[in-house]
Amino acid sequence: MSEVQLSRTDAHRFREWLAAGRRAVILPTGALEQHGPHLPMGTDGMLSGHLAAAVAREVGALVAPAFTFGYKSQQKSGGGDHLTGTTSLDAGTLVQLARDVVGSLLRQGVTYVVVLNGHYENYQFLYEGIDLALRDHGVGTDDERCVLLLSYWDYVSQESLDAVYGDAFPGWDVEHGGVLETSLMLHLEPDLVQLDRAVDHPPAQLPRFDRLPVVPGRTPESGCLSPPTGSTAEHGRMLHDQVVRDLAADLRRELSL
Amino acid sequence: MSEVQLSRTDAHRFREWLAAGRRAVILPTGALEQHGPHLPMGTDGMLSGHLAAAVAREVGALVAPAFTFGYKSQQKSGGGDHLTGTTSLDAGTLVQLARDVVGSLLRQGVTYVVVLNGHYENYQFLYEGIDLALRDHGVGTDDERCVLLLSYWDYVSQESLDAVYGDAFPGWDVEHGGVLETSLMLHLEPDLVQLDRAVDHPPAQLPRFDRLPVVPGRTPESGCLSPPTGSTAEHGRMLHDQVVRDLAADLRRELSL
Amino acid sequence: MSEVQLSRTDAHRFREWLAAGRRAVILPTGALEQHGPHLPMGTDGMLSGHLAAAVAREVGALVAPAFTFGYKSQQKSGGGDHLTGTTSLDAGTLVQLARDVVGSLLRQGVTYVVVLNGHYENYQFLYEGIDLALRDHGVGTDDERCVLLLSYWDYVSQESLDAVYGDAFPGWDVEHGGVLETSLMLHLEPDLVQLDRAVDHPPAQLPRFDRLPVVPGRTPESGCLSPPTGSTAEHGRMLHDQVVRDLAADLRRELSL
Amino acid sequence: MSEVQLSRTDAHRFREWLAAGRRAVILPTGALEQHGPHLPMGTDGMLSGHLAAAVAREVGALVAPAFTFGYKSQQKSGGGDHLTGTTSLDAGTLVQLARDVVGSLLRQGVTYVVVLNGHYENYQFLYEGIDLALRDHGVGTDDERCVLLLSYWDYVSQESLDAVYGDAFPGWDVEHGGVLETSLMLHLEPDLVQLDRAVDHPPAQLPRFDRLPVVPGRTPESGCLSPPTGSTAEHGRMLHDQVVRDLAADLRRELSL
Amino acid sequence: MSEVQLSRTDAHRFREWLAAGRRAVILPTGALEQHGPHLPMGTDGMLSGHLAAAVAREVGALVAPAFTFGYKSQQKSGGGDHLTGTTSLDAGTLVQLARDVVGSLLRQGVTYVVVLNGHYENYQFLYEGIDLALRDHGVGTDDERCVLLLSYWDYVSQESLDAVYGDAFPGWDVEHGGVLETSLMLHLEPDLVQLDRAVDHPPAQLPRFDRLPVVPGRTPESGCLSPPTGSTAEHGRMLHDQVVRDLAADLRRELSL
Amino acid sequence: MSEVQLSRTDAHRFREWLAAGRRAVILPTGALEQHGPHLPMGTDGMLSGHLAAAVAREVGALVAPAFTFGYKSQQKSGGGDHLTGTTSLDAGTLVQLARDVVGSLLRQGVTYVVVLNGHYENYQFLYEGIDLALRDHGVGTDDERCVLLLSYWDYVSQESLDAVYGDAFPGWDVEHGGVLETSLMLHLEPDLVQLDRAVDHPPAQLPRFDRLPVVPGRTPESGCLSPPTGSTAEHGRMLHDQVVRDLAADLRRELSL
Repeated sequence: MSEVQLSRTDAHRFREWLAAGRRAVILPTGALEQHGPHLPMGTDGMLSGHLAAAVAREVGALVAPAFTFGYKSQQKSGGGDHLTGTTSLDAGTLVQLARDVVGSLLRQGVTYVVVLNGHYENYQFLYEGIDLALRDHGVGTDDERCVLLLSYWDYVSQESLDAVYGDAFPGWDVEHGGVLETSLMLHLEPDLVQLDRAVDHPPAQLPRFDRLPVVPGRTPESGCLSPPTGSTAEHGRMLHDQVVRDLAADLRRELSL
Repeated sequence: MSEVQLSRTDAHRFREWLAAGRRAVILPTGALEQHGPHLPMGTDGMLSGHLAAAVAREVGALVAPAFTFGYKSQQKSGGGDHLTGTTSLDAGTLVQLARDVVGSLLRQGVTYVVVLNGHYENYQFLYEGIDLALRDHGVGTDDERCVLLLSYWDYVSQESLDAVYGDAFPGWDVEHGGVLETSLMLHLEPDLVQLDRAVDHPPAQLPRFDRLPVVPGRTPESGCLSPPTGSTAEHGRMLHDQVVRDLAADLRRELSL
Repeated sequence: MSEVQLSRTDAHRFREWLAAGRRAVILPTGALEQHGPHLPMGTDGMLSGHLAAAVAREVGALVAPAFTFGYKSQQKSGGGDHLTGTTSLDAGTLVQLARDVVGSLLRQGVTYVVVLNGHYENYQFLYEGIDLALRDHGVGTDDERCVLLLSYWDYVSQESLDAVYGDAFPGWDVEHGGVLETSLMLHLEPDLVQLDRAVDHPPAQLPRFDRLPVVPGRTPESGCLSPPTGSTAEHGRMLHDQVVRDLAADLRRELSL
Repeated sequence: MSEVQLSRTDAHRFREWLAAGRRAVILPTGALEQHGPHLPMGTDGMLSGHLAAAVAREVGALVAPAFTFGYKSQQKSGGGDHLTGTTSLDAGTLVQLARDVVGSLLRQGVTYVVVLNGHYENYQFLYEGIDLALRDHGVGTDDERCVLLLSYWDYVSQESLDAVYGDAFPGWDVEHGGVLETSLMLHLEPDLVQLDRAVDHPPAQLPRFDRLPVVPGRTPESGCLSPPTGSTAEHGRMLHDQVVRDLAADLRRELSL
Repeated sequence: MSEVQLSRTDAHRFREWLAAGRRAVILPTGALEQHGPHLPMGTDGMLSGHLAAAVAREVGALVAPAFTFGYKSQQKSGGGDHLTGTTSLDAGTLVQLARDVVGSLLRQGVTYVVVLNGHYENYQFLYEGIDLALRDHGVGTDDERCVLLLSYWDYVSQESLDAVYGDAFPGWDVEHGGVLETSLMLHLEPDLVQLDRAVDHPPAQLPRFDRLPVVPGRTPESGCLSPPTGSTAEHGRMLHDQVVRDLAADLRRELSL
Repeated sequence: MSEVQLSRTDAHRFREWLAAGRRAVILPTGALEQHGPHLPMGTDGMLSGHLAAAVAREVGALVAPAFTFGYKSQQKSGGGDHLTGTTSLDAGTLVQLARDVVGSLLRQGVTYVVVLNGHYENYQFLYEGIDLALRDHGVGTDDERCVLLLSYWDYVSQESLDAVYGDAFPGWDVEHGGVLETSLMLHLEPDLVQLDRAVDHPPAQLPRFDRLPVVPGRTPESGCLSPPTGSTAEHGRMLHDQVVRDLAADLRRELSL
């Protein structure tokens, strides 16, 4: 089956795939969130979706439909949930969404679910949803079934960071609409990037605490926490290929794919 | 703004669109559900998504990302949730998903949300999510803001039914993987339809009650409740155009678009 | 045991009944909802309760206390939840109510629960409650235990419709305070029907969409979506007897009662 | 309006009643619970329902349909939830049920809701549901609207206790299927009491702690925590009249009815 | 292990304790609640914590960290939740807190959990949390594992009451900031009692119903429902020792400690 | 008022403090979690509690009772929730706990709540609880009221890190039972540290993904993710004083204390 998207596959082929002993489904997760004037609001789901598809092709996995809505943007990692365009879920909703989808896949006979996150704020809620799904299905440490959870930037290597940022890597939390996302989008969705609308400004300097409600003025006007200056499609290609290669290798090793 | 997909639009353009007095966002909803051997599992979200985009272009609306997971398939309308490939949400999850997304859009200044449903079983849970979102935001009968909810088949006219089915229309509930969905997919996503895999069989004869757990043998082996026999891209085009025309007219009239 | 109402039976007799291998409990569900000026607000629960009792006598089942509150009235099926007198539950509440009661009956050794619905808007939430109860108790497709769910009008035959309405049947959704309910009430609770207060008007013409919040003016002033004109106790008796006969036959066949 | 039951009243008359400045609705709450071999399982709802109706007639109030399911029977007050026939709700369900119904009544313009409880274990969950409903509706201490909550035995006077029990009153917690309930039922529902099936035994001696799961042997075989020995319809009439008189007086004074 | 507090013990010693067959953990529960001008707001958790520690030393149990927040103060037992200083949990929160902690302890191999309550209003919600935890873990009546629930005042003997109050015991519900709590605090936390700030007034005379929202003027200005007049450290020592002795005896007997 | 602990203060003094215009309450949060053989299980709550008290003294704030239970330990930050001694809350419970307590404090007139976290895994769930509490109370960006959230290690300066670790700082995620916590405990709770039981081992090397259920063998036997080797009370004192100084300065500046 060359098609890796579950949504584009018919159920009978999916059953054959399961019966043939194929076992891993990758679930990309993103958000509908402002990403500055130069990137589309669906950036997080597009990136995790593209990476999921590329990894799936490498390891013989399938890809579930992406979560296109995510947890509320936080000021220190995404500018804040007060910014128009950012359309978010409460924690409980995201937890249940992950719980239901992961649980439903396990119930059908999928052995491994790999949740590939592309929106910083989602992580802990996805974790809880997975934990509850495993509890619901009685999956213990002696079970072959398991779920892996990761954010794709966890797989960006130091070498890649050095190549892209030199010494100027600002930290993953403020990598929102910055060089990483912009370069990847230039490589993967060039028609949706409007570099001429990008704003150059220093990385946001935010307090060590989270303040709620946010002080809106602390988020740069662009909505980005670090500028996309220096983004190139070539950086994006390199980042993409390195992450896909390393993540595929990890999945093969961990899951004996 | 010619792009109608919120996920492919940047937030700054979205704010300009709002500031210019544009006000309606259409939210398509579907499911990941077996649709027989000839249709992909994402059929419901694809159809509601395509129709939403076409209507949006007609009336100057934007389209939110589709809900790609839906409520559990029921035997009398979708074959049943026990069928592998069908990956479903509990009611509470879908209610909250609708509540959060509708509420978040209203909070941003969207005046009208049109929920365009493509999965039979979703309807009542979307209704509840909308009702709770309006309560959360204190939207009463004297408010300009409102939400419309409909399933696209509510807009298929008697003329269209007669043209497609003659006298043999089996009812919307068993229109699962049947002539309507298949014809629309042949028109809108021809590469994803495999008519050579379609199975011809009489419409399912199911009891007047719902039985839970289901008796699996009551669902036809194909997973379809009525056969796609007679589906054509031309029927699909005609259905699509008629629904888009009538729904757009209704939205213009109801919402003064 | 000639008494069929669980609430009027003592627990010791109920245990004897279970020990004797009797196994089906019917759970009627209704609402507290305006039904126009000629019918009482408890109509839905009274009708489902009377039908449940008559069926129970036929098949040797018992009847649980009716759910006397139901899901929110919707404009297209009950006039709307904004109408004074209509006292409603949120979806989550009704789901949990059904889940708890069905689950509690199964835990006690009841093999079959038949949920007999009398309020249009309840259906999907009862379905979810039942599904969750079966999941809670680990009841799978190979279990003898099961739950049936139906609305009593699903059992009104075409012959009965023809006899009562001729060609003028307006559809079950707008049968709210109309000929069906009024005739049944004239047969079963004649003292509570005030036909002299009934209002004659054409069936409501509502849009194809649901709009929330509702536009109150779209509901007829009577609160009925179709007029009770032509209701008679004789129609009611005929409808009652036919539904009881056919439903009892279905239960006997399906559950080997 | 001589009819006091909301379920037996039409909505138009209810609106006239509200418009005429009548303002109190009494909501009786009970349970479906084993009450020994001599009392029916619906005893709690019947008693609170009868008392509600009698009080309503005194003070010009209306009566909502009773809650016929209640919180889990506890061993120290009802014998325990493990006893067949006892069909119970989880706490969250009962809280939401009370929250929705109380809130819905307030929204319609009812000024005072009086929750008249007849099942010992319900009390705290009704309290929470009421508190949440008032919070939902923004009812603060300066609002005319309010909710009263009471169990009917709170209104049994010392004189009545002395008359019925002499010195032998065992305490309200173990008054389950005992002299109070049995006498009231003999007065109010004589056909449903089977005194010849009553078992005489000393009041249950239960530990000072609650143990979960219960030790079933600690509940008397009858399911009653104190024996009904000495119950008479005359005691029942006296208790009924005294409670109705005192409760009506309290409502008149507190609510200026 | 002489240290009885789990929070002050390292996990490796706790595992040795479990491996050695020790099995009971006591979980004290309190509240942050106004207790008049003479007692600190943490009184309930301090008292249940001290008693738990003393009993634990007697029977070889360990003590979990106290719940320092509790259910909303009610006017008839704690003065009311409107009083500044009272910081409370909704019912659902307390239920889940008890469910999670009790369940987590059982999962680790603790055989007996003893929930020792010190805040009147907590009781029913702790009960529900325990019931749900046991259901989650499939603990039935044939299981050795169990949970005991009690409020410490259930163990104050008639002799102690007579010694402390003579004939004037006002009832446990209004024992809020009164002689019992004050005497125990004088014995256990003398530095936190300011008897010179205590107010003498008659026990509060509250209606037989609960009214919500409360009528603030019905709570005495002190916030106490009965006065602490007559409290002494000596009474406190006597109450403490009697309760510890009797509760320890009950635990030894019931749990074979 | 020299006493900073709300639980040790009476409500009348608290009201005077509020009336005097004092406005900040610090809420420390921890967990009951294994911390290796050398630290007690309550370490996280003790550290956040001590720091909260020291900061409160500096800025004139009060301290609420600590959350002594926290979110599930994750393998990559705390060794994992499968380790005996770790007693955890589900996400929903912690969210509601934070929501209720923060909301209750705001309702009483507290202007600023500072949530000072000491357990790595709690952070996002506290964030959600705070966000929901602010929504419940309608606190928007133009409100003086606000909540700050931080983990105390966010305030450890680079200078302090250099002084304590030299070049060997392993990252905050694996600082579980390591040099930071151990040094702080040696300074603040020396009697509860058993350095002779500490195990020296290299920092844990965990995969870039989270795997659920965990592979238990990936957690070092000690339960610590980095060794406490090199911990001293002097380091602890220095860390403590620097954090308190910097956090107090931040609070003064941000909240105009």
